[in-house]
Amino acid sequence: MKNTQLLGLLFFVVSSFAQNIQSPSKAITLDFKLSADGKPTYSVSYKNKAVILQSGLGIKLKEGGDLTSGFSIENTANKSVNESWQPVLGEQANIKNNYNEMTISLLQKNSGRKVNIIFKAFDEGVAFRYEFPKQANLNYFIISDEVSQFNLAGNHKTFWLPGDFDSQEYAYNETKLSEVNTETINKNNGIGLKSIAGKYVVQSPLMMKSADGLYINIFEAAVVNYPVMHLDLVPNEYKLTSRLVPNAIGDKAYLQAPCVSPWRTIMVSDDARDIVGSKMILNLNEPSKIDDTSWIKPMKYVGIWWEMHVGKSTWDYAGSQNAQNTLTKDLIPSGKHGATTENTKRYIDFAAKYGFDGVLVEGWNVGWEDWFGNWKENVFDFTTPYPDFDLKAVNDYAKSKGIKMIMHHETSGSVANYERHLDRAFDLMKKYGYPAVKSGYVGRIIPRGEFHDGQTMVNHFNFVAQRAADYKLMVNSHESSRPTGYSRTYPNYIAAEAARGNEFNAWSNGNPPMHETILPFTRLLGGPMDYTPGIFEIKMSVYNPTKTEQVHTTLAKQLALYVTMYSPLQMAADLPENYEKHLDAFQFIRDVADDWQDSKYLEAEPGDYLTIARKDKHSENWFLGAITDENARDTEIKLDFLSPNKKYQAIIYQDGADADWQNNPKSYAIKTIQVTSKSKIKLHLAKGGGAAISFKPIN
Amino acid sequence: MKNTQLLGLLFFVVSSFAQNIQSPSKAITLDFKLSADGKPTYSVSYKNKAVILQSGLGIKLKEGGDLTSGFSIENTANKSVNESWQPVLGEQANIKNNYNEMTISLLQKNSGRKVNIIFKAFDEGVAFRYEFPKQANLNYFIISDEVSQFNLAGNHKTFWLPGDFDSQEYAYNETKLSEVNTETINKNNGIGLKSIAGKYVVQSPLMMKSADGLYINIFEAAVVNYPVMHLDLVPNEYKLTSRLVPNAIGDKAYLQAPCVSPWRTIMVSDDARDIVGSKMILNLNEPSKIDDTSWIKPMKYVGIWWEMHVGKSTWDYAGSQNAQNTLTKDLIPSGKHGATTENTKRYIDFAAKYGFDGVLVEGWNVGWEDWFGNWKENVFDFTTPYPDFDLKAVNDYAKSKGIKMIMHHETSGSVANYERHLDRAFDLMKKYGYPAVKSGYVGRIIPRGEFHDGQTMVNHFNFVAQRAADYKLMVNSHESSRPTGYSRTYPNYIAAEAARGNEFNAWSNGNPPMHETILPFTRLLGGPMDYTPGIFEIKMSVYNPTKTEQVHTTLAKQLALYVTMYSPLQMAADLPENYEKHLDAFQFIRDVADDWQDSKYLEAEPGDYLTIARKDKHSENWFLGAITDENARDTEIKLDFLSPNKKYQAIIYQDGADADWQNNPKSYAIKTIQVTSKSKIKLHLAKGGGAAISFKPIN
Repeated sequence: MKNTQLLGLLFFVVSSFAQNIQSPSKAITLDFKLSADGKPTYSVSYKNKAVILQSGLGIKLKEGGDLTSGFSIENTANKSVNESWQPVLGEQANIKNNYNEMTISLLQKNSGRKVNIIFKAFDEGVAFRYEFPKQANLNYFIISDEVSQFNLAGNHKTFWLPGDFDSQEYAYNETKLSEVNTETINKNNGIGLKSIAGKYVVQSPLMMKSADGLYINIFEAAVVNYPVMHLDLVPNEYKLTSRLVPNAIGDKAYLQAPCVSPWRTIMVSDDARDIVGSKMILNLNEPSKIDDTSWIKPMKYVGIWWEMHVGKSTWDYAGSQNAQNTLTKDLIPSGKHGATTENTKRYIDFAAKYGFDGVLVEGWNVGWEDWFGNWKENVFDFTTPYPDFDLKAVNDYAKSKGIKMIMHHETSGSVANYERHLDRAFDLMKKYGYPAVKSGYVGRIIPRGEFHDGQTMVNHFNFVAQRAADYKLMVNSHESSRPTGYSRTYPNYIAAEAARGNEFNAWSNGNPPMHETILPFTRLLGGPMDYTPGIFEIKMSVYNPTKTEQVHTTLAKQLALYVTMYSPLQMAADLPENYEKHLDAFQFIRDVADDWQDSKYLEAEPGDYLTIARKDKHSENWFLGAITDENARDTEIKLDFLSPNKKYQAIIYQDGADADWQNNPKSYAIKTIQVTSKSKIKLHLAKGGGAAISFKPIN
Repeated sequence: MKNTQLLGLLFFVVSSFAQNIQSPSKAITLDFKLSADGKPTYSVSYKNKAVILQSGLGIKLKEGGDLTSGFSIENTANKSVNESWQPVLGEQANIKNNYNEMTISLLQKNSGRKVNIIFKAFDEGVAFRYEFPKQANLNYFIISDEVSQFNLAGNHKTFWLPGDFDSQEYAYNETKLSEVNTETINKNNGIGLKSIAGKYVVQSPLMMKSADGLYINIFEAAVVNYPVMHLDLVPNEYKLTSRLVPNAIGDKAYLQAPCVSPWRTIMVSDDARDIVGSKMILNLNEPSKIDDTSWIKPMKYVGIWWEMHVGKSTWDYAGSQNAQNTLTKDLIPSGKHGATTENTKRYIDFAAKYGFDGVLVEGWNVGWEDWFGNWKENVFDFTTPYPDFDLKAVNDYAKSKGIKMIMHHETSGSVANYERHLDRAFDLMKKYGYPAVKSGYVGRIIPRGEFHDGQTMVNHFNFVAQRAADYKLMVNSHESSRPTGYSRTYPNYIAAEAARGNEFNAWSNGNPPMHETILPFTRLLGGPMDYTPGIFEIKMSVYNPTKTEQVHTTLAKQLALYVTMYSPLQMAADLPENYEKHLDAFQFIRDVADDWQDSKYLEAEPGDYLTIARKDKHSENWFLGAITDENARDTEIKLDFLSPNKKYQAIIYQDGADADWQNNPKSYAIKTIQVTSKSKIKLHLAKGGGAAISFKPIN
């Protein structure tokens, strides 16, 4: 055999068994390899350190055999992409999408079936997904399990939530992988519906840090027509396997080839800022399907909402749960109803006076007497207001003040009922000029047996965004499955909650001070969060002396959240009267932008601290937010992100010298100074504290 | 103790344990009794013969204990009702509702819970239901089982269908109760989706005949917000117990007090005509909820339908199943599509020429390439026509000819998808002036895990009728749960299939000759059936010489079905060209009325023969239909139902002398004679044969 032939044969032999790609920076290498019995596996290293040890891939089918072994490689294709795109709303006006891609085309000999696995390597991590091409031997199929493994290389520090198929509203646990155990968590945490799947099941996104300082994050992108991926952990082996959420009868996903799975993502870097600032999840989603996006706009809003959470008023009109289907005309008002025409006008006045875009009203519609915890199907019709809420009068008044109303659709988890009424509910919104809806899914899902995180519900949440786009409406969903970048494809899906938000502080053991320092490394990677920050009256005892609940931050940290918790939809969540007591601090909320030209992740440590500076897309203003956990923190920020050769007025909103989230949360200080890009600012953050700074060019 | 006191005590003692009511005729007695441990029981006798031996009643709850024992009687209330009401469309213009009623109010000591059982005794049978009053100790609750027993007194001849939670499209089995066994039936019967619940589970309605000639029927009425009741049988003990259909997770019904169960009905008479002519099911339903019913009208229609069943054309456009989501613009027409603009105009012309009201078109809309057996969710959108079906042109043409179009919504069982599109589908119908829709539910239900007969689906079918009423549209549902009188409450729900219809003759082992003689005793008790009669070209071999399928009746029996199978919606189901070959026989279909002043059940034997005469509501015409099973039959009909002192022209459409459903089905003879109310007509019905007669007054 000639040398060239031998070399050719060697090349062929080598490439039959192992392929790899690297990140554009070359720091990350991903290797793909078929094992001896044709099982697809992969591994990942970072700067030559193993991050993912050899881990299996595959899909199990309900019928007709599994797609896990017996494969041969039919083809390998590589490509590189380096492009940019512009989101309608975002943390940046321009998002770079730079990766190397490898497609492995597999053929399963026995079944004749084909599966492609596509790998992408970005500078901040890798991603892979399964692709089922159109083929004779695979048409409609049912997935009974996905067996994507993530075998980690060490007993990493891990920030985890229990694998609950219905809720992400847990506070984070911070333990080693080997110590993960869902039975040990505090179940008395304010969550109404819990469906924890097992002792060693955790949710994704999963944020970790190795002993030698490597940050690792496992998540997914583009969850479309597929269930959510949780993770089964073997704690003392640091092995994770995909755990798909089942439907009512135990099936995972119903698919028809050609189709694809979501992307499974593994971010890795020795710099935490690469993770928290990563745009990988958005980059892995389909481009926008909406042509005319002129109606998609950011909104700062206030609302009839917090007053119910703190017990000043109620969502319901008749003041009682279980009014037992009393006809609306027979309901006796309790006098505590929050969503009245009069109260709404008060909020509209406040919004107009202080330059807000919108007013949210919860509890405007019939059905709240009976809505919670009853698994009731025909709970709301989304169109019938209570007798004391005049839809027309409210909307005329808002229009006269240049304010938009934000609609509220609490579904109570009764999704079938919501879908039956959806067009009528959206017709009503168009009739009165509501541009956006906040939806809620508090409660067990109907269709009964489904989970919030199953394929059926994933499809529902996405369907609502699609249907809303038909109507040119924006959607902000609460208690939905956590976003995985679909806001790129449907930019009208502008925000979601889908994590433990600020409201938990009003009536439960609340959110620990570290909570907001971990969420940007996890929940926010997939899309904006309507965290509803801006609570000034920190302790609930002001409403009722017997209450012990409080927000677990200082007031200054609440301001910083408008920068650190990205969302184009931001609520000034507190009561108007509480803002009017602190108009100086409120000025930051009034000033802060909500749509960004650029974002700089200056300092970041998951679960500890975070400092971000962002530039307004529509002005030369910059805004900075710095937050810390239960530890006080001193830091110095270089302002080299500012434009050179410009002078800026910086208004610094800080914790007071004696501030402390527990003992003295409302102590704050405001200082105005002049700065340039060469300046540095020293910040002292109290325990559970923060700082917010606005930078406006001085002409 | 004085005598009166003793008597009073005796009365009190007696009435604490046993109560009874009688039918107005006093032939039927129903006894209620609490057993020693407070279990509610009842028994029924007819002319002093035991029909239902002592049988238990009760409800089991998923949580909090059962409602089956430990009761005491708190109160007994009696009343009598004798009223009439007028259905919008019906077999009679006036329906009498005459019964004696007894309400037993029970209190369960341990739980403090209250249940009322209401009994009604009509001349043709009894009914009972459970009522859960508003109360402190019962609010939202989940039924895990209903344990209503029907302990029969003998090994009756029984006409039964297997207890299939998804389909009633079986041919009837005729055996003794002791011989019931679902494993013995012919499973090769053309039914696509089978979900038979067990060896000794049968459906209701269940028709029986005792050895001493008593006709007994067990059924239910007003199934609203509750699952369908099947029946568990202990074959050698002749004991039946209610078997409710579960949902995806095994629960039966989700209820909130105050609420009621459906009525369980037991019809009994020594005259079969009392059963087949009973209006009890309608009488047990709530009165009409529709105020203005002027838009609810009967319809005789033809349609692009049978030609697909006999293989002349297809529902789909691209001629293939599993087109794998090919975009509509890429579909390549097979040339065999039935629902084209041109073909529709042909049917419109035919309908206009021969005086029909409407034309149904199946296969007009995108989705048929992929619709069957794939459990596909987003299968149809109910609004997008195929490229060769011009909605506007078709409807303009129909309007110009004075013909209404009947819409078709095949859901493929993907109910969630249908509900998402329902308003848009109905908007389209209103836009083009469609007055009615035929819906279909062929396939496994989505939400996955649900059955056609579960509470979720029962609610869906009723919901569609309610929503259609909003739009002033009429509904004819196929493959829905069998009707139980809801057409009284929503008279726009004008018909349903929900049993094995004429179509099975085109492509399966078909419907045996007795089939149409049993359906009026079972399926039709609950509401009209769109049986789609009127097939003239009896044998399918005319379309393809290799076909062995055929309609299992003579042509004359097909005519008779327009009288014996009551429906305000009647199809002339055959191809236009087949009618044009037999315009003389077709005349009966053109003449027969579809809305009735009165109906006379002249002769009836379940599974054997049936003769009915009906008077048109809108003229002085009468129509008679007589049918037999596989046995030939000679009978003499007295025409004393005709108005006295009138002369009538009677056109008699009979089997030819040599007719036979198998060997010579198309042999028929037409004779015209003059009759009066004093006349008698002798009829000879062939094997599988029938006769149809129109009576028109001669001036």
